[in-house]
Amino acid sequence: MDPMEFSQVVRTRRMIRNYDPARPVPEEMLARVLGNAVRAPSAGFSQGWDFVVLRTEGERAAFWEASTTPGREPDNWLLGIQRAPCLIVCCSSPDAYLDRYAQPDKGWTDRDAARWPVPYWDVDTGMAALLMLLTAVDEELGGLFFGVPVEALDTVRAALAIPTDRNLVGVVSLGYPAPDRKSPSLRRGRRQVGQVAHAGRFGTPLAL
Amino acid sequence: MDPMEFSQVVRTRRMIRNYDPARPVPEEMLARVLGNAVRAPSAGFSQGWDFVVLRTEGERAAFWEASTTPGREPDNWLLGIQRAPCLIVCCSSPDAYLDRYAQPDKGWTDRDAARWPVPYWDVDTGMAALLMLLTAVDEELGGLFFGVPVEALDTVRAALAIPTDRNLVGVVSLGYPAPDRKSPSLRRGRRQVGQVAHAGRFGTPLAL
Repeated sequence: MDPMEFSQVVRTRRMIRNYDPARPVPEEMLARVLGNAVRAPSAGFSQGWDFVVLRTEGERAAFWEASTTPGREPDNWLLGIQRAPCLIVCCSSPDAYLDRYAQPDKGWTDRDAARWPVPYWDVDTGMAALLMLLTAVDEELGGLFFGVPVEALDTVRAALAIPTDRNLVGVVSLGYPAPDRKSPSLRRGRRQVGQVAHAGRFGTPLAL
Repeated sequence: MDPMEFSQVVRTRRMIRNYDPARPVPEEMLARVLGNAVRAPSAGFSQGWDFVVLRTEGERAAFWEASTTPGREPDNWLLGIQRAPCLIVCCSSPDAYLDRYAQPDKGWTDRDAARWPVPYWDVDTGMAALLMLLTAVDEELGGLFFGVPVEALDTVRAALAIPTDRNLVGVVSLGYPAPDRKSPSLRRGRRQVGQVAHAGRFGTPLAL
């Protein structure tokens, strides 16, 4: 397998919603996916993330049972992603950041979450998840990032022994891709640079 | 300039805290940075992000004046990043997500933010910022991601005409790198895969 150029990885990445259930993710690929994830940036180098990796049929079944409505017929979306041989549950720790910024070189000893303009614990863990998705492309695997429904957060935490002080930022599914339908959301079209970039102040389109 | 391999970009990325103020970011590089940012994934393809690009001395001065404490002597950190010729203020729109998920194919017509386990508007915009930082490495530029202090959010919004319904997720500074000191936070050491990855359930270290 040839190493891929960075720009090609970015251009070809898309969410993969169906997997070949017969082909597990090779260990060395999983090691590279996780090895890149821990290179994500983090505020104060807090690195307040944990990743619960589910690879056996029993581990994955415990997650799906805890995260889906009992008795409800799975739709095509769910049937596809349930074929993924590997799931990585991405957790964030607000306390890791509050503790880090209470240290002498930062000095926010009040540990007040209101000091944070946005929750960097979730943002940084999301960046780690993106590095997993990009690395999957580089490894010629498929990946998807999806959220855990609010109503399933407690049962998923319980099923995987995740402490209650962790946020569940989302799950990366990994595997060899199988044919899938692209997301119907893509019909919305991509917002182009000229629509989202502003020159000097909000509302003045940037022309490049 | 040769295209860089993906894995090399990830391995060499680090935050750059000093810039050559005499060398602006070439337009075609800025176009590639922003062109990759809009390839970030987003929940429901909501793409609720906006990027305010500050390139003139006046635009940058307006940001720094609005975001720093008047009369306070800038420290070395601030002096370094104030030399960056380009700043990209990354904004997120919660409403873009609430609106998207109220559409018929999602059907959360109540627009209730409590349905969201974490604020994906901030997480997705953070992913876009990471793609900027990675692209900077690919372009042999330096980049840094930093937050706007809570107490400066209103003045920065006012200075850049950013609507009050936008969150300020952070700022990417870009430019040609100048010698800098690595962050003292790095002394904390990187949390290795064996410390952050769990096998099957939280608390069982993953051995790869």
